[in-house]
Amino acid sequence: MASQNLLLLPGDGIGPEIMQEVKKVIAWFNDKGGMSFETDDGLVGGSAYDAHGQSISEEDMAKAMAADAVIFGAVGGPKWDDVPYEVRPEAGLLRLRKDMQLFANLRPAICYPALADASSLKKDVIEGLDILIVRELTGGVYFGEPKEIIDLGNGQKRGIDTQVYDTYEIERISGVAFDLARTRGNKVTSMEKRNVMKSGVLWNEVVTQTHKNGYQDVQLEHMLADAGGMQLVRWPKQFDVIVTDNLFGDMLSDVAAMLTGSLGMLPSASLGAPDGVTGKRKALYEPVHGSAPDIAGTGAANPIAMIASFGMALRYSFEEIEAANKLDKAIANALDKGLRTKDIASEGQATVSTSEMGDAIVAEL
Amino acid sequence: MASQNLLLLPGDGIGPEIMQEVKKVIAWFNDKGGMSFETDDGLVGGSAYDAHGQSISEEDMAKAMAADAVIFGAVGGPKWDDVPYEVRPEAGLLRLRKDMQLFANLRPAICYPALADASSLKKDVIEGLDILIVRELTGGVYFGEPKEIIDLGNGQKRGIDTQVYDTYEIERISGVAFDLARTRGNKVTSMEKRNVMKSGVLWNEVVTQTHKNGYQDVQLEHMLADAGGMQLVRWPKQFDVIVTDNLFGDMLSDVAAMLTGSLGMLPSASLGAPDGVTGKRKALYEPVHGSAPDIAGTGAANPIAMIASFGMALRYSFEEIEAANKLDKAIANALDKGLRTKDIASEGQATVSTSEMGDAIVAEL
Ligand SMILES: CC(C)[C@H](C(=O)O)[C@@H](O)C(=O)O
Ligand SMILES: CC(C)[C@H](C(=O)O)[C@@H](O)C(=O)O
Repeated sequence: MASQNLLLLPGDGIGPEIMQEVKKVIAWFNDKGGMSFETDDGLVGGSAYDAHGQSISEEDMAKAMAADAVIFGAVGGPKWDDVPYEVRPEAGLLRLRKDMQLFANLRPAICYPALADASSLKKDVIEGLDILIVRELTGGVYFGEPKEIIDLGNGQKRGIDTQVYDTYEIERISGVAFDLARTRGNKVTSMEKRNVMKSGVLWNEVVTQTHKNGYQDVQLEHMLADAGGMQLVRWPKQFDVIVTDNLFGDMLSDVAAMLTGSLGMLPSASLGAPDGVTGKRKALYEPVHGSAPDIAGTGAANPIAMIASFGMALRYSFEEIEAANKLDKAIANALDKGLRTKDIASEGQATVSTSEMGDAIVAEL
Repeated sequence: MASQNLLLLPGDGIGPEIMQEVKKVIAWFNDKGGMSFETDDGLVGGSAYDAHGQSISEEDMAKAMAADAVIFGAVGGPKWDDVPYEVRPEAGLLRLRKDMQLFANLRPAICYPALADASSLKKDVIEGLDILIVRELTGGVYFGEPKEIIDLGNGQKRGIDTQVYDTYEIERISGVAFDLARTRGNKVTSMEKRNVMKSGVLWNEVVTQTHKNGYQDVQLEHMLADAGGMQLVRWPKQFDVIVTDNLFGDMLSDVAAMLTGSLGMLPSASLGAPDGVTGKRKALYEPVHGSAPDIAGTGAANPIAMIASFGMALRYSFEEIEAANKLDKAIANALDKGLRTKDIASEGQATVSTSEMGDAIVAEL
């Protein structure tokens, strides 16, 4: 394997602690796995703001654009609640997504067998759950203009956000969903609110057309996003791949993640389009969970989602499928041996620290 | 009690069947409860479209504007999937909400003790659940302009929706939430996406200010809407009153309703501002569930949400608190006696039809 550049952006809260564990895993693959990763570190979010008043520096943005993959921790925390909107911690993440054109966000919601009891849902409802949410990540209400607060006088202000989707954006994200469905359960459920939103009408139309044009072998189903939220709670196993827009994807993937009882375990991948010449995609990998400032520094953070995010990098950026499977297996083994961080322990069960969990996974490798 | 005008709009699917049961309840209150309701019927949704090509006629709109309360069934179904956007079934409901200025949508998510087992969630997570979602209903992305699909040429279209909130809209809906919290658990959780949306920034700011100005005795908490969806699944009992915008309210209230396992049981109220002279509010009452076209005509529909919606009318439009309590008690009694429609029966449990359930509730009165 030619040398690959990883930019590590640990971010805030528990970000640096869990990134520490990924470094151990990367070191193992370099030493014993025949790989050759070169890593560089950068700042993002509140920690970048503290260092230089921006949620990500131009220098780190340039590194991200040049990296073979970005490994991202988490951003945000009460410390930065009152910083100006433009430089709030989340702005760094949103800029990475937008400038790197990471339009396809893959969020698996998997229920790890060892953890089926940790869910608030009944065991039979979530045991064996394996769904993939494909969220559009560079469009919609996150980025549409106008996006502003206008002073109307008389003590009145107006807050405006704009949801915008163009045909090509819907086409490319549904193409990703159909392609992925073929490697899994061969079914796609598209979710929008076409009964209320014009962007939903267009979404529905374009997904239907994309299906007709090249994916008729895949089963396609349409569902209103509110009904989709309900169905996720009622019987999530009815889904295979869900494709939806940026904002619905944000909500629905969080609900789906929480269903599994395995929130601290779930990775995500954000991918750009393949480059026309090299075929390589820009990519960023991050855990689904947030920066959990309340437990930062206590050694209670679960590093598995972060490590599994690196696993997704092996799979999607480096096509090291065997290595990715090996890493997933190492995680499952550590769980099977009863190792639990606090978030996934049942009452009375012994727990290990962030770094003990990281070490155990490396040992399993 | 002076005579009160009710406009009944059964709508589509199971709407007419469940409205039939409400009529029995209204008749009982007229005959034996010392009340004096006059009812009129109208068409809305697909049935209105079939009759006169509109999702609600001008005549029925005028009746709704003049009524003391509108009792609404449900709209929509596959039959009307391809009618023009402007006259789709939902347009009738949206016009009622907008023209009657029903800005405050109250959606209780209650777990009926007799039904705690029907939920996909663990019993201890939802037993005794009693939360109230206060959803803004006349603003946001539902009604903001521009809302359109533009043809960009070259096979490209652009779908646009606009999320707009003004200070006064956020002020009045949060006032409703704080007022209601005082009659309950005295806690309000406000949900938005201020980390991504400018309307969310304004929402957060105005709710905080409204709290400061007159509701400091009520506990106020802010939560990002995606985290809110997660927390609803994880531990819903942490909430008392949730206040949120139109679209987040749509999603979150559906998730909350499904948590309870009692979807066929949950009513809602949509209220306007009190009239400056008479103090009366325009109001519409409807079940949280939809038109369920798949079971229409089979006698399987559960009429309880519809009947409980009339109960909310007694409470909020007619201040007949005792009668409202009596009706709620009659519903609980029928359930305690083991009466179940199909949707709420456990495996192997005997079921009753829509009209048998209605009759049983009247008998309990
Ligand atoms: C941190 C925030 C901007 C982000 C989002 O809203 O997309 C997060 O919730 C996510 O889902 O990745
Ligand atoms: C029918 C539809 C327009 C409506 C909405 O989106 O508001 C429904 O889902 C609801 O929640 O009342």
